[in-house]
Parts: sequence; structure tokens; C-alpha cells
Amino acid sequence: MMRCTHQTAVPSASTGSAALLEALRSTGPLVACITNSVVTNFTANVLLAAGAVPAMVDITGEAGPFAAVASALLINLGTPQPEQRAAAAEACSAARAAGVPWVLDPVAVGTLVHRTELAQRLAEERPTVIRGNASEIIALAGSGAGGRGVETADAVDAALDAARALSTRTGAVVAVSGPADAIVDGECLARVGGGSPLLTRVTGGGCALGALVAGFVAAGRSVGADAFTATVACHAVYSAAAELAAETASGPGSFQVAVLDALYSLDADDVARIPVS
Amino acid sequence: MMRCTHQTAVPSASTGSAALLEALRSTGPLVACITNSVVTNFTANVLLAAGAVPAMVDITGEAGPFAAVASALLINLGTPQPEQRAAAAEACSAARAAGVPWVLDPVAVGTLVHRTELAQRLAEERPTVIRGNASEIIALAGSGAGGRGVETADAVDAALDAARALSTRTGAVVAVSGPADAIVDGECLARVGGGSPLLTRVTGGGCALGALVAGFVAAGRSVGADAFTATVACHAVYSAAAELAAETASGPGSFQVAVLDALYSLDADDVARIPVS
Amino acid sequence: MMRCTHQTAVPSASTGSAALLEALRSTGPLVACITNSVVTNFTANVLLAAGAVPAMVDITGEAGPFAAVASALLINLGTPQPEQRAAAAEACSAARAAGVPWVLDPVAVGTLVHRTELAQRLAEERPTVIRGNASEIIALAGSGAGGRGVETADAVDAALDAARALSTRTGAVVAVSGPADAIVDGECLARVGGGSPLLTRVTGGGCALGALVAGFVAAGRSVGADAFTATVACHAVYSAAAELAAETASGPGSFQVAVLDALYSLDADDVARIPVS
Repeated sequence: MMRCTHQTAVPSASTGSAALLEALRSTGPLVACITNSVVTNFTANVLLAAGAVPAMVDITGEAGPFAAVASALLINLGTPQPEQRAAAAEACSAARAAGVPWVLDPVAVGTLVHRTELAQRLAEERPTVIRGNASEIIALAGSGAGGRGVETADAVDAALDAARALSTRTGAVVAVSGPADAIVDGECLARVGGGSPLLTRVTGGGCALGALVAGFVAAGRSVGADAFTATVACHAVYSAAAELAAETASGPGSFQVAVLDALYSLDADDVARIPVS
Repeated sequence: MMRCTHQTAVPSASTGSAALLEALRSTGPLVACITNSVVTNFTANVLLAAGAVPAMVDITGEAGPFAAVASALLINLGTPQPEQRAAAAEACSAARAAGVPWVLDPVAVGTLVHRTELAQRLAEERPTVIRGNASEIIALAGSGAGGRGVETADAVDAALDAARALSTRTGAVVAVSGPADAIVDGECLARVGGGSPLLTRVTGGGCALGALVAGFVAAGRSVGADAFTATVACHAVYSAAAELAAETASGPGSFQVAVLDALYSLDADDVARIPVS
Repeated sequence: MMRCTHQTAVPSASTGSAALLEALRSTGPLVACITNSVVTNFTANVLLAAGAVPAMVDITGEAGPFAAVASALLINLGTPQPEQRAAAAEACSAARAAGVPWVLDPVAVGTLVHRTELAQRLAEERPTVIRGNASEIIALAGSGAGGRGVETADAVDAALDAARALSTRTGAVVAVSGPADAIVDGECLARVGGGSPLLTRVTGGGCALGALVAGFVAAGRSVGADAFTATVACHAVYSAAAELAAETASGPGSFQVAVLDALYSLDADDVARIPVS
């Protein structure tokens, strides 16, 4: 069960998640993405399949103005070239000034110097949501040394205290991805199950989820759902798509394809199967 | 019917398109691509599946010499990093000097400053073809404010006057992508139907088409077809592949895969089904 | 038959290759990749499907420290932006200093100035393996003018002398990809057959193989296999995956997907079908 007192729009059943998916599909939020070179294509396709509109604008001079008019912004630090780091800072400031919700995905922070410094700086710029795996959240919270590349070494539970501390410090909803995802907002906690282990055998599974969270937060606003609710809904929808995809996949290649098909076609019943507590 | 007086090689039926596809397959033109980070992989795979040979050479010092020896050049401004902007200008000049045909894809021009300035500058460098969606063509022609990211907001018909003006000003064939594509060369107009709405749910559908146009223009030269004819043929072939793909696809993921399979295997009968007028 | 006198761990049957695949799956080596923008996604997915852990860290300040703690490093010069060139040099030095095996993939070297200069320089930094197509190996050895983009124009046999000279000069195992691959270590030669012509119709087939070689070299170390043995095993496994994939593919799109599925699921019997001599 969600331990949560301050939310008014928490979905008591996954009906809420399906409703937010419908809001995403009907509003088609424009998600500005500054993301890593490995996952740009899959990220854009995940957003399109689900019903959002991606646009990767990651150069200085353009990133700020674009973020200010987008529905939401994703900043993912997977391959932060110098120009992209400057563009990320520019976009982040512009989004904050314009009241555009934004998501920080601190890929592989910990010991790698440029992304870690930038993530720490951006975390102070009032991100709406921070999404990462357990070791990234622990590293960003300052309570651990970070992970082994992008793979998580710590269990989700071991990151809960760090997630709460990071949420309290930054004001962000913090989502910790793992076998069962945990979404934290201050003292509020939701867990989303389901999904598929094949997600760990495809690159960009987590990165694309971060972009989709941005889309859900924007869509959620249009129907009065807060960022916590929208983040939970997004994780439930993504888990439902992964479960559907795993049913027909023969391996990670066909799974990646099937995730896009599932995001495009899944319905309320599919989403309702995902345990949210 | 095509309203066109100055063309000698306009295909009166889509037979012409199938013949140019065969020319592409038999000549395997080398297409130098300077394109955005989201679609590089899909673009290269589209070219390979159809029978062309892609090479992404997008750094200064290499882009110019390479463009000069390529069969054709694509410049797509989707994610124009500073180094890539300089490389694009270098490649464009080299292609022009060497008589290599080149295609300009002005992704999301309008208000975004760097790509818009560069697109305006490159449009004066005698592109062989300019391909974009309606709002991009309107923006580049100077008659509108541009679109919402890469998604087209204007209908193709609303862009026809802009396309004609842009074609007259630059000397380029101008292709406007949409539910039915319009290809303009001065006062000459062709329309290509068919295709699939799923193309709008996959990233890079239009970007890869721009690269394939470059391949077709090169292949067309080898059999005496002009750029207008080759551009029309390319759009017909691409629509045929999309239609074939949509027949078996379960969603955008499997559709993207099936488009590549279809480009590889489609024959004259498949192409003949596409309405060209 | 392999003409080889100094190897102690050469697989006399492809059992050796299957055993190294198992070593890869059980050890999950962390492969640091500095690679081109066209193939990052497919490369990461190939590594994940096979059982390795990819991480693309290609900026200065991070590339060196990361390479030093990785299990292996790949440097692919397909789209060598200035920042990436500097990062490649940094990573290469760090890997060498730390004793981390590393693979050089000299994409399209020959006349393109930046990549050719860098490849020549890096070839002197004691790469463990150099992998390329025939024209790239000939160009890097200094005995030819290089190829036509990334496509090989020379037959594998025509590159054998160049491969031997390059191996002797650099101390690296040299792998020449083609219809039948040749792997050279000084005077030692192995040939790996099988595979599928569809590999030439998908971008990144060779690039991803280079990354997988890095993973196999790392996995091989854990069970006492030398770099030559590991490189041969990797080529056999990759050929087996391509053959399996071709059995079900309808074209290059479904083939690319099926290669990932096959890498994930193939077993010793599948690998044993590949002729290694």
C-alpha cells in the first residue's frame, strides 16, 4: 500500500494510470529531450508509440528557447559532451523559469566527473522528477560511490533512504528503477511491480522511461494529477508494456520491438494487471 | 495528373519509379549523410535495405573531401552541433563544386536559431532537392513561423505556394511530406499517395526519406532521369514500402522493422500500387 | 586448419568458442565503448544480448578513468568528433597503463584525414585486437589507399599480407571481416565461415562485432584464453547468431532484430555448426 498522506490524486487502483495514459494520448505533450547518443532513437520511438511528441534539441542557443515552450523536458546525462552539458544547463534554467516540468536522469553518476558535477548542479534547479537506478540515486544523494556504469548494483530497497533524502533536499519526486520500482515523494512511497527482466537486456529501457515520465507529468497536469501520481502511472504503463512485450518476444531484439507495439496498443485492462502499492 | 511542362522524363505511370529503384539497386550509390543523432541508425539501414551505401562523415576536414567523391549528399539539420554545422557547410560547398547532387532537410526550422540560419544559408548553395514537412517548407520559404518540433502542423496543400516560391528561388526540387506528398519543381507538381499513418509514429521516417531521395537522385542520373523524376520515384517507393510494412505490423515497433524488410524486397508490382498524379 | 604454432589455447573444435560464450555470459564483462553515432544503440544491444555490459563513455575527463576500470575497451573511429578523438586517445592510454585489453576498429581509414591519423597513432598504443574489413586493414597497414566508405572493396585474402604485417608491427591480433573472416596473429591464421550476407545490409554489423570482440577478450582472460583464441571464438559466435537469424528473417530489418535474439539464446550446438579452420 502507498504510504502517503499529502497526495490528493493518488490512484487507489491502476485505473488512475490508464486514465493518465489516455490523457497522454489525447494531449500529445511535446517532450524536449537532451539525452545520450546511445538511446536517442529508442527514446523518441517510445514517446511516439505512447502518444507523446519528442524533439531532441540539445545545442546551446536552441535548447533554452525550446525547453521554455515544450510541455516537459528530459535531461539525461548518459553521454554528456561539452556542448550538451551547456545546453542542458541552459534548458534546465529556461524550463524552471517558464514553469515547464522537467526530469533529471543522472546516468552513471558517482565517480565520473563531468556528469556527476552537472547532476549535482542540476539537482538544485528544482527538477520535477529524478529517475535512476538504485546506485545512481544513492550516488546523487551523496550516500554512496555510484554504480558500475549504467547497471545497478544496489537493490531498490537499499536506495530508499537515499531517495527520501534526495526528494526532501531537491523537492523532486524520486523514482528508483529495479525489479520492482519505488517512487518517493518526501515520505510518500509507491511501488510498481510487473515488467520484465528483458528490460535489463536492452539498452535504453530506463532512459526511455525517464523521457516518458516527462510526458506523463505534462499530461497529468492537464487533468489535475500531480507529479507523483503521474510518475507512478508512467511506471505502471511502462511495466504493462514490458509484460505484454515479453509474452511474445523471443529475446531482447524482438522484445524491444514489441515494447513499442505494446505502448501503442495497450489498454486499461493491460495496465490494471500491474501491481501498484 | 502532374501539372508539368518542362520535364522529359516524368514517369507517366509508376513503372518509372520501379525502374529507378532497379537503378538504385544495380548502381548502389554512395550517399554521404550529415544527419541528426536520433535517426542515424535508421537512415543508414533504410539506405542499405533499398540498395544504396550510406556513410556518415560529419566532421570538418573529412566532410568536404568525402562529399566531393560521394554519389550524393544529404544534409539534415535535426541536431546541428557546432562541429556538424561547420561540416555541413564544408560538405555542401564541396558537393556543389564537384557537381554532386545534394538534398537539404531543414528539420524544425522556423524559430530555432542555429538550424534556421544555417538552412537559409545552405538553401542558397543550390541544393538539388529540399525535403521537409509543410511547416518546415513554409518556414524556409519565409512565409510562416515554422512548426512544432518536427511534427507538421500545416497541411501539405497550405505549403504548395511556399514550395513553389522556394523552388523558384533556390532552383531546387521541393518535396513536401504529409498524408499525400507533394513534389514541386517550379510550376511542376506531382502528388504521391499511399504510405501509412504509422510513419508518423516512428522517428526518422521523414529523415530517412530525405537520405533515400539523395540515393535516388544519384541513381536517376545514371539512367538519365532528372531530380524531379527521381524524387517522385523515391517517394512512391517509400510509400509502397510503408504500405507493405503496415500490412503486417502490430504497431510502430514492428512497422519500423517491416519498412526495412519491404524496402529490401519490394518489386515493381508493389510500387505500381502507389497513386502518382 | 589453423596454421599456428605459438598458441596454447586454440580451440581445436568450436567447443572452445561455446565455452568462451559461456564465460562471457557468466562473467558479464564491462565493455567501455567509444564508438560512432550510427551504431551506438545496436552495439550496446549486441553486448547486452550476448551477456556483456556496455557503457559508452566518450568524453575527455571521463573516458580515461572509466577505461582503466573497465574489463575491456573498444575504440571505433566511425564518426570521430574532435571531443571523441581526444577521449579515444585518453581512454587508450589509460587502458594500456592499466593492462585493460582494447580493440581498435579503424572505420573507413585511408584518405579521410582525422580518423586515419588517429588510427595510425592508436595502432602504436599496443591494441590487443584490430578489427576491420579488408580495405581498412590494408589501409592501416600502409599498403593500400583504403576503401569506399565502410564497405569493403578488397577480398579478405588480398588483405592477409597486410594483416600479418600489421599484426607483427603492432603486436595485435588482426581480424579481417568478410564473407569468411580471417583472424591473424603474426604468422598464425584462423578462418571463420558461416554468417549471412544480410550482415552487409544492416549498419553496424562489423562495428558491433568489434565491441563483442572486446567482451570476448575480457571473458577469455578469466578462463585463460589468449586474445587470438577469444577473437576467433567471438567471430564464430557472431557467425552462428547471424546464421540463426537469417533462418527466420524476411529482410534486413527482421534480421537485425533476430541477431539480437540469437545472441541471447544460442547454444553450443549452434556455435559448433560454424566452420573454423
